[in-house]
Amino acid sequence: MMADADTVSSSDVGLPPGTLRYTGEKSDGPVKITILDYDEAGLTEKTVQRVEDCFPFKEKPTVTWVNIDGLHEVDAIEHIGRHFDVHPLTLEDIVNTGQRPKLEDFDGYLFVIFKMFYHDSDADHLKTEQVSLLLGPTWVISFQEEEGDVFEPIRQRIRNAKGRIRRMGADYLAYALVDAVVDNYFLVLEKIGERVEDIEEELIADPSPETLHVIHRLKRELIYLRKSVWPLREVIGGLERAETMLIDQKTGIYLRDVYDHTIQVIDTIETFRDMVSGMLDIYLSSVSNRMNEVMKVLTVIATIFIPLTFIAGIYGMNFAHMPELDWWWSYPLVWLVMAVIAVAMLIYFHRKEWL
Amino acid sequence: MMADADTVSSSDVGLPPGTLRYTGEKSDGPVKITILDYDEAGLTEKTVQRVEDCFPFKEKPTVTWVNIDGLHEVDAIEHIGRHFDVHPLTLEDIVNTGQRPKLEDFDGYLFVIFKMFYHDSDADHLKTEQVSLLLGPTWVISFQEEEGDVFEPIRQRIRNAKGRIRRMGADYLAYALVDAVVDNYFLVLEKIGERVEDIEEELIADPSPETLHVIHRLKRELIYLRKSVWPLREVIGGLERAETMLIDQKTGIYLRDVYDHTIQVIDTIETFRDMVSGMLDIYLSSVSNRMNEVMKVLTVIATIFIPLTFIAGIYGMNFAHMPELDWWWSYPLVWLVMAVIAVAMLIYFHRKEWL
Amino acid sequence: MMADADTVSSSDVGLPPGTLRYTGEKSDGPVKITILDYDEAGLTEKTVQRVEDCFPFKEKPTVTWVNIDGLHEVDAIEHIGRHFDVHPLTLEDIVNTGQRPKLEDFDGYLFVIFKMFYHDSDADHLKTEQVSLLLGPTWVISFQEEEGDVFEPIRQRIRNAKGRIRRMGADYLAYALVDAVVDNYFLVLEKIGERVEDIEEELIADPSPETLHVIHRLKRELIYLRKSVWPLREVIGGLERAETMLIDQKTGIYLRDVYDHTIQVIDTIETFRDMVSGMLDIYLSSVSNRMNEVMKVLTVIATIFIPLTFIAGIYGMNFAHMPELDWWWSYPLVWLVMAVIAVAMLIYFHRKEWL
Amino acid sequence: MMADADTVSSSDVGLPPGTLRYTGEKSDGPVKITILDYDEAGLTEKTVQRVEDCFPFKEKPTVTWVNIDGLHEVDAIEHIGRHFDVHPLTLEDIVNTGQRPKLEDFDGYLFVIFKMFYHDSDADHLKTEQVSLLLGPTWVISFQEEEGDVFEPIRQRIRNAKGRIRRMGADYLAYALVDAVVDNYFLVLEKIGERVEDIEEELIADPSPETLHVIHRLKRELIYLRKSVWPLREVIGGLERAETMLIDQKTGIYLRDVYDHTIQVIDTIETFRDMVSGMLDIYLSSVSNRMNEVMKVLTVIATIFIPLTFIAGIYGMNFAHMPELDWWWSYPLVWLVMAVIAVAMLIYFHRKEWL
Amino acid sequence: MMADADTVSSSDVGLPPGTLRYTGEKSDGPVKITILDYDEAGLTEKTVQRVEDCFPFKEKPTVTWVNIDGLHEVDAIEHIGRHFDVHPLTLEDIVNTGQRPKLEDFDGYLFVIFKMFYHDSDADHLKTEQVSLLLGPTWVISFQEEEGDVFEPIRQRIRNAKGRIRRMGADYLAYALVDAVVDNYFLVLEKIGERVEDIEEELIADPSPETLHVIHRLKRELIYLRKSVWPLREVIGGLERAETMLIDQKTGIYLRDVYDHTIQVIDTIETFRDMVSGMLDIYLSSVSNRMNEVMKVLTVIATIFIPLTFIAGIYGMNFAHMPELDWWWSYPLVWLVMAVIAVAMLIYFHRKEWL
Repeated sequence: MMADADTVSSSDVGLPPGTLRYTGEKSDGPVKITILDYDEAGLTEKTVQRVEDCFPFKEKPTVTWVNIDGLHEVDAIEHIGRHFDVHPLTLEDIVNTGQRPKLEDFDGYLFVIFKMFYHDSDADHLKTEQVSLLLGPTWVISFQEEEGDVFEPIRQRIRNAKGRIRRMGADYLAYALVDAVVDNYFLVLEKIGERVEDIEEELIADPSPETLHVIHRLKRELIYLRKSVWPLREVIGGLERAETMLIDQKTGIYLRDVYDHTIQVIDTIETFRDMVSGMLDIYLSSVSNRMNEVMKVLTVIATIFIPLTFIAGIYGMNFAHMPELDWWWSYPLVWLVMAVIAVAMLIYFHRKEWL
Repeated sequence: MMADADTVSSSDVGLPPGTLRYTGEKSDGPVKITILDYDEAGLTEKTVQRVEDCFPFKEKPTVTWVNIDGLHEVDAIEHIGRHFDVHPLTLEDIVNTGQRPKLEDFDGYLFVIFKMFYHDSDADHLKTEQVSLLLGPTWVISFQEEEGDVFEPIRQRIRNAKGRIRRMGADYLAYALVDAVVDNYFLVLEKIGERVEDIEEELIADPSPETLHVIHRLKRELIYLRKSVWPLREVIGGLERAETMLIDQKTGIYLRDVYDHTIQVIDTIETFRDMVSGMLDIYLSSVSNRMNEVMKVLTVIATIFIPLTFIAGIYGMNFAHMPELDWWWSYPLVWLVMAVIAVAMLIYFHRKEWL
Repeated sequence: MMADADTVSSSDVGLPPGTLRYTGEKSDGPVKITILDYDEAGLTEKTVQRVEDCFPFKEKPTVTWVNIDGLHEVDAIEHIGRHFDVHPLTLEDIVNTGQRPKLEDFDGYLFVIFKMFYHDSDADHLKTEQVSLLLGPTWVISFQEEEGDVFEPIRQRIRNAKGRIRRMGADYLAYALVDAVVDNYFLVLEKIGERVEDIEEELIADPSPETLHVIHRLKRELIYLRKSVWPLREVIGGLERAETMLIDQKTGIYLRDVYDHTIQVIDTIETFRDMVSGMLDIYLSSVSNRMNEVMKVLTVIATIFIPLTFIAGIYGMNFAHMPELDWWWSYPLVWLVMAVIAVAMLIYFHRKEWL
Repeated sequence: MMADADTVSSSDVGLPPGTLRYTGEKSDGPVKITILDYDEAGLTEKTVQRVEDCFPFKEKPTVTWVNIDGLHEVDAIEHIGRHFDVHPLTLEDIVNTGQRPKLEDFDGYLFVIFKMFYHDSDADHLKTEQVSLLLGPTWVISFQEEEGDVFEPIRQRIRNAKGRIRRMGADYLAYALVDAVVDNYFLVLEKIGERVEDIEEELIADPSPETLHVIHRLKRELIYLRKSVWPLREVIGGLERAETMLIDQKTGIYLRDVYDHTIQVIDTIETFRDMVSGMLDIYLSSVSNRMNEVMKVLTVIATIFIPLTFIAGIYGMNFAHMPELDWWWSYPLVWLVMAVIAVAMLIYFHRKEWL
Repeated sequence: MMADADTVSSSDVGLPPGTLRYTGEKSDGPVKITILDYDEAGLTEKTVQRVEDCFPFKEKPTVTWVNIDGLHEVDAIEHIGRHFDVHPLTLEDIVNTGQRPKLEDFDGYLFVIFKMFYHDSDADHLKTEQVSLLLGPTWVISFQEEEGDVFEPIRQRIRNAKGRIRRMGADYLAYALVDAVVDNYFLVLEKIGERVEDIEEELIADPSPETLHVIHRLKRELIYLRKSVWPLREVIGGLERAETMLIDQKTGIYLRDVYDHTIQVIDTIETFRDMVSGMLDIYLSSVSNRMNEVMKVLTVIATIFIPLTFIAGIYGMNFAHMPELDWWWSYPLVWLVMAVIAVAMLIYFHRKEWL
């Protein structure tokens, strides 16, 4: 899912534009369609099997939210698209999961596409999913690759008539969905923050080549996250400024709020990136420091013994005329000399702080 | 406080916008509300317990400054908000301490949020606090996380009727508060400047792995500071250009002055960043230089003794026919040869500047 | 083909502008001219030898696509140019294969030039080819350096009347050609993605100096690709915004789609660049890590034996008075002492994690 | 003077804006005020003690240049300020020597502030001084921290009526002063250029850790210079575009010329920065190269003698049954074998270019 | 010529603007003035000694090209300047050879200044020369530091009435001159491209410290080239957009073409810069690789012999009671043990790929 290169697979090339082909992970389960239709007075909620069941809601004055989990049933999506007058290129983007976050303003609807991230705690890495929104005058259609629970709190709010969501239009619903996704980014960043702290402790306590790989994986996930969030900023900024009847003046102020959150997400990602590249420096210099310490100690040991071995070598020579060999005090004296040399070197190395 | 990732905690996600929840450090003390109400003629100053006590000042033509220390009593803040017609999103931003500095122009008031920094001399690191300002036609409400003394000089100026503060409106008061915060940045930078100088001396005198950690901590604080000051530039630039009745033409010139100060702060931060990254280079190359020197000296010692030990080894051999062994001059000659070799190598290494 | 410096050869300098000289690889084969003329009702397809054969199609109301494979017959191209009122500078750009992607708006036609990439699987490197398009009111002329099959699917779509291509004008055909080229980039990126993954596995399994060269070649191809795709973004953006009668409103939406794809291509290239520079770091640090490990082990071995050799040297001395030499237990004791020293050092090194 | 952090000292914080406090180096000497009043016809030049002496010149139609050396007499400056209707914030900026170069357009005058650099040949480092200009309709007031001779040539030109300075207004005088300062930058850059060349020669001839410190000091001075010259560009660009009656159309063309010079200064600084960072690379790699050479030679010496010592060790063993020991040719043969091994290794190392 | 710092020499500072002083290399030869006067019908070509000889051509309706080789006769240039109503600042720029490429629009003429590069094949480095153009309604005056042959092909085209140059005005002539200079850049880049390839081969075959210096010199030349070509882009872009009567609509399309070429030059320079910095990485890592290989081999040799020498040392001890010494098989056994140890270590090192 993190691999970018396969977003457009070779089999796609040469197809006419507007051809629908799902490019995400294949799934066999049925597409799940849930409908929430509400206004201040009442609420209808149902899960349907056939896409046709959501058609009647299009013309109703109440706000309708159609949520579709699973993009592999391309026919169903095409069917919805035709009924809601969605442009074929939009449908192509919805099922092609390699899209960059973007906002497009079509006649009759706004089309927003972005990425949702989950922290997969089993594999300890990021999972990503593409979410698309279609905002019409009285309806919002959301498409997800898999069933997720990020939108569940919004469903609850609608059911409980909590907050202002039941009193406002489809644009506010779209805002609420985008807001839920952006808030979810903070969760992901929190997890990453924890990993950053873990790595930093590991770096001080016990840096290993494994640490380096963890740092690089983190760096890469940040590259990927950044790539998904930067364009989101433009998307939300675009929503805020959009000259369209579909978004009410009153919702604008809420969009500005999500916009601020997005910038905060970007800021945090950039800070993490700075931290991670600082970590790499610390890792490299601490590994090299430790290595240097080891080599220094070993070399000091060798350096102390080499002159001593030389002295021993001297008196191991077999010359006939070596007067010292016959002296009584020679042997203890040699030991003494050696001890003096060794101690002198140790003191010298210690003073020079080589030990 | 320096950790960014926990600015939005997991418990927040999914709440409807405008829900107030304080995200800073919990505190049990009561919220402290101080009111300063003044015009050129007179001054009223009082500390109140209940937020309702500051409501009567709203409609008075005199300038009223309500300062609130402590954000944990969310109800009180909501109460004030309702009375002063503050938008729920603004209140949410005030109590959520992970905000990015920003300026927002609402009907009836301007909302400014920024960061204050203190240098905590005990822990020798930066502490940060979020400060929010609401500027209405005749009133300024300021929110701080903790009691601080940065605004005290302004209080003194108002009490003493020193400077032009008593003759001017609420916008000038807001300017004075922002100015106090920016001036405070210079104090923080001065401290950082001292630390930079300390580290530089340490780098030349005695670089240690500890130095590296200090450099990295400094680097990180600068990243954090920078992140808080860059948006402040836009905030103050925005105040200066704001097309609002709330800011008088005459105050604009003062805002331009704070703007210049902010740019100076940014410049100084950038210079420190350049210096700190230069330090890292110096540190790494001086550590590697010292290491190299050590290894070189040790290797030179070993290199001198290895050939000598070889010679000693030669005459330690037990061949029956080794004529030199029986010569009278052999032993002193071997010493001489060894001395000559050692001196020759020393001279050679010295000339090559390896010693 | 990857070498940029020879795009303008010395023989060119000083020629008057508009002089045609083909600068690509020389080829002896004839230039191949294929004509597709179609409208919703019918289709004419033929391959001609003489350029004059495509002149009659210029004035026909049907859409005409003239595709020219091979640029070495400069006279033929000049002949076409004259008939279709093409500016000499445009013709010069078409045959000069060192052009940067660009869009130029002339009276009567739009001129688009860009690069096509193939992954040459034999040599495992990128091949590039210059493609130019002339878009007139009812005709498109495309120029390629070599015969390629990237446009084949479009020919098929025209023949089969599949998609909307037969119902739309020359501008839609031009769009389809550009789209085919951009889609082809995804294929190239897919190949590069595979190579990136291969290198990453190699980096973990067995980094060699060869790996370094592969990384650098990849880096260089990415520099080159990037250089060709960045300006393409402006080209397509320019087509989208072009204030010209030649491009219909309805085609604009498709151009926006290609534009999005181009940005995706750029994003992917940038991500690959980030990855590749991360690889370089991993390579260097893993090489240095392995080297350090080797040196450490070797030095540890030496360090253990040097003191032992010293002890052996001591008892190899020939002093007359060395009481230990005569003791019965000396020899086994020396072995014991040596074993103790060796084991102690091993334990110490192990504890310090030097082994 | 190079330290930025202390530009705003702690004692400043909390003062009302417009409070004058000199922040540069304290000086006891009197402030020196020189007046040059001229038109095409005549010239008055005098040095006064009291600031009041320059007041009468304000209303005269002739061009008046008041130059003030020394900023420590804050009262005098305040006095001038009041008489010439200078805003308190301007006066605060003049005496606060930590300002960033800037241009401000007030009612009745333009205010320009910038940095002057001297190369202090004793200490071989840069000195900096803040210079401010006030340009009124018929007068220019210039403030310097110390007496300098950069403006002397302009005084000479005025005295000699050389060039067009006597025929033109106060705006041309202001231009001439700015031009003198920018020209002075070239002198400073020339000195830096010489130092760059010196360091480069040193780098090739004999790089030492000292060189590294010199490179870093140079790098830092360039950071500082850059920080002062970049905003100057905006200042002069601003003067050129300023919509003010104070600057005549005719002077504009001269300002464009200084603007070009400023860009040249910036270009040269950037080139020096590139060169200096290239130097760092050369330094590091040449130090590491030399170190490597040393270690290689030493290790080669050790490597040659270690096997030889081993052979000597073999025949130093005391086994009862070692037939070689008794052979006549053994000893010379061992020498021969050793010589062969040593020569073979030398040849091998030489071929491998390790020596 | 490559040294930037001396573009403004100390003797210049303080001179009034508009003072002419030639700052290039002094030359004694006479200034060479050549005049080409032509229209579609006829051509006059002559070489004159006195500048006055070209004055009559100013008012003629035919296109006049005055080319001046050599800038050291400042009086002559001043004389021309006065006759053609050239602003003193323009003349100052012409003779001051340290100018940055720029375009200035004066009353009555356009002034263009840029750099010409030659590859000096003797010294194998870049030479640079400043070229200035004055474009009046019917005349072009070009100034060069030395006689060069870059403009010769244009002279030939005018003489031969080849291309459209004789049919078009002075603006087309100016374009042709600029085009000749930009085309010449391609020649220089071609040479640099060859050097890049040479260095790359050297890097793979036999990297030496010399290679590093060559890389750095190349890097520096690219910095310098880049500095001269980037502003040229603005210059030509400015010419293209210039709202002046001096440039005809028809010439605009040709200027766009030179503009494209300039961008191609910039692109190529940037690509070379990327390549050169990649080279530095390859150089450093290949030098360090080779060094590591050497050290590894040497250390392996030492590591194999150190344990063996230890064993020899053991049996060189002189203990009275060493039973092995008297055994018959001891000596051959020791040899065997040593051989086994050595082979085992070799196999181990080989398996670990340390050899």
